[in-house]
Amino acid sequence: MKSIYPIMNIYLNRVLDNYRLLQSMLPSVQIAAVVKDNAYGLGAKEVAKALSNDCHTFFVAYASEGAVVRSVSPKSDIYILQGIAEDDLEIVKKNHLIPVLSSLESWRWWQGQAISDIKPAIQVDTGFNRLGFQEQEILRLSPNERDNASLFLSHLACADTPSHPLNRAQLKKFMKLHEFFPKTPTSLAASGGLLLGKNYWQDIMRIGALMYGIALPKDMKEKLQHTVHISATVLQTAHLKKGETVSYGASYTADSDKKIATISIGYGDGLPRALSNQIGRFFYQGQSLPILGKVCMDCTICDVTHIPDLPVGASVEILNDTYNVDDMALDAGTIGYEILSRFGKNSRFLKTYHEHFIDRTFTNI
Amino acid sequence: MKSIYPIMNIYLNRVLDNYRLLQSMLPSVQIAAVVKDNAYGLGAKEVAKALSNDCHTFFVAYASEGAVVRSVSPKSDIYILQGIAEDDLEIVKKNHLIPVLSSLESWRWWQGQAISDIKPAIQVDTGFNRLGFQEQEILRLSPNERDNASLFLSHLACADTPSHPLNRAQLKKFMKLHEFFPKTPTSLAASGGLLLGKNYWQDIMRIGALMYGIALPKDMKEKLQHTVHISATVLQTAHLKKGETVSYGASYTADSDKKIATISIGYGDGLPRALSNQIGRFFYQGQSLPILGKVCMDCTICDVTHIPDLPVGASVEILNDTYNVDDMALDAGTIGYEILSRFGKNSRFLKTYHEHFIDRTFTNI
Repeated sequence: MKSIYPIMNIYLNRVLDNYRLLQSMLPSVQIAAVVKDNAYGLGAKEVAKALSNDCHTFFVAYASEGAVVRSVSPKSDIYILQGIAEDDLEIVKKNHLIPVLSSLESWRWWQGQAISDIKPAIQVDTGFNRLGFQEQEILRLSPNERDNASLFLSHLACADTPSHPLNRAQLKKFMKLHEFFPKTPTSLAASGGLLLGKNYWQDIMRIGALMYGIALPKDMKEKLQHTVHISATVLQTAHLKKGETVSYGASYTADSDKKIATISIGYGDGLPRALSNQIGRFFYQGQSLPILGKVCMDCTICDVTHIPDLPVGASVEILNDTYNVDDMALDAGTIGYEILSRFGKNSRFLKTYHEHFIDRTFTNI
Repeated sequence: MKSIYPIMNIYLNRVLDNYRLLQSMLPSVQIAAVVKDNAYGLGAKEVAKALSNDCHTFFVAYASEGAVVRSVSPKSDIYILQGIAEDDLEIVKKNHLIPVLSSLESWRWWQGQAISDIKPAIQVDTGFNRLGFQEQEILRLSPNERDNASLFLSHLACADTPSHPLNRAQLKKFMKLHEFFPKTPTSLAASGGLLLGKNYWQDIMRIGALMYGIALPKDMKEKLQHTVHISATVLQTAHLKKGETVSYGASYTADSDKKIATISIGYGDGLPRALSNQIGRFFYQGQSLPILGKVCMDCTICDVTHIPDLPVGASVEILNDTYNVDDMALDAGTIGYEILSRFGKNSRFLKTYHEHFIDRTFTNI
């Protein structure tokens, strides 16, 4: 066989399609791209470059991430959500990054730096209780100081549950606190806010998940595309006799004679160990291959009894359009964000970026 | 404050101490270092270099990983556990890596390459049912072919449960199959095999976990050292009123007035989201800070009610000698291997390698 490394295909055209669809759905709103955590694992440089003709506003968590985006997007607004500290000042000035400041203390510190060509964003807490000015801190800013903010920002806790009363409470508080910043543009919602309606969309929406095809609400599943496919190789097939066990701790015992296959992907590659023992599955030509025993660091064993002629070297699908990031997250007891962010960090993947979608027929035996 | 990036300290001196202790405990056995998956996240290049004067045998999963080890260890034996395919041939020849072959098919293919100066290892399956020759495949090798193997290897399923009957069954099968390879050195056990006794140790023991200070058996906890410390920064503190909620989904509701702190580490950095809502905790000067609400991608909120003067910018401990990788694994419902492998892939860490242990007093405010 040609190669045994696990494979990740990243479809930048689909990221761009998703971005454009969302922008076309909300023509009066500016859609900003959230590319923190290396664009949720897809690659911040590649994603920002693919979006560079369409998107003029990016959000990252750290200044170091902002510098990566700046390298492929010379003119965009790049906001740093996590804020900054002394060590970031040079990189912020050099790359013209906009810090999101979340406390009076950080605000006063920033003003002390006298960086006149960068107006910071201000984040207010409206009930998420993570990062943001409290109301009493805002009251201590003078009107002149308030005019110095380039963006007035908050974050919703329950946007993906439109009926949750906290949404309305957060919006109400957001509007009330914004009265102190009458000239400043606003941003309240991330991907989850799409279905909440235009009161929540404000001037700038910060879109990450939907653009990457994860955490899709029901009525968007047909419209938005999955952006990552993962596959791995059949290293070996073997017969398992009734009563024999598989992998660490002998936690799976065959209740009948089986055929098993060992696949070249494990938790060291980002496959959650929580998928052990038939919680998760792989796919081959549309057929499901339940995981048997514990997921190992470098490989995983699955049941291929129903595919007796599965060849060594065949490519097995780990994530595809049918079993996607959200499906795996559901099996693993988490959210698609964590799945994607984790796979994205695996340096053992043969990673390929596609500008056009290619329906791989998985024949690299 | 000076910096807000999360911090990983890797103590190479402790890795080396652990290695030396294990080698001194088993003087008649050769202790090989398992450095696959980038040395379980610690850094294969750095770990292999730290061990280079002591350790002469390394195990990796992939040929690409072997090349990294070769770059700092010019003369060692480097085995590739996952096997190889066509694309690896050049890198294997150039770096003199030793493939571990697990099937008759791969064995015959390797012989066809006629690489006379590399004698492959042979892996036999003795009941793990993952990778390895079956008995009937071994019988099809001629005595001449068998003499061509440089190492006779298998892997135990239940080594960390010494009383499990599969251990004895695997050893028995291993010894039986080794009769076909009377001249070939043997390797059966990894870290878990330490407590199984000398019959299991064979010629080469493959040590990963114990060297990195994870999956420590009870009576080794005092002897082996933890090799990784992680800390992160207090970005903000705030008061939470009784009835208020924290983070996504408002899944935590305060039952009394609280003080909370937002810490600059999240699941995007490798912190398992499974630690949400008081399953996990951080530490500050020996005091426990329970996690409140859902772990976010870039930060996590914790309860600091009992530390009313906790300053913004303070350093909070995520992993230390008291709450180590295994402790977090227990909280997150997994094993230390998965925790360490995952943290090790986070490129947002300020990573520092230490040749000497420094007891950081966490004062970088």
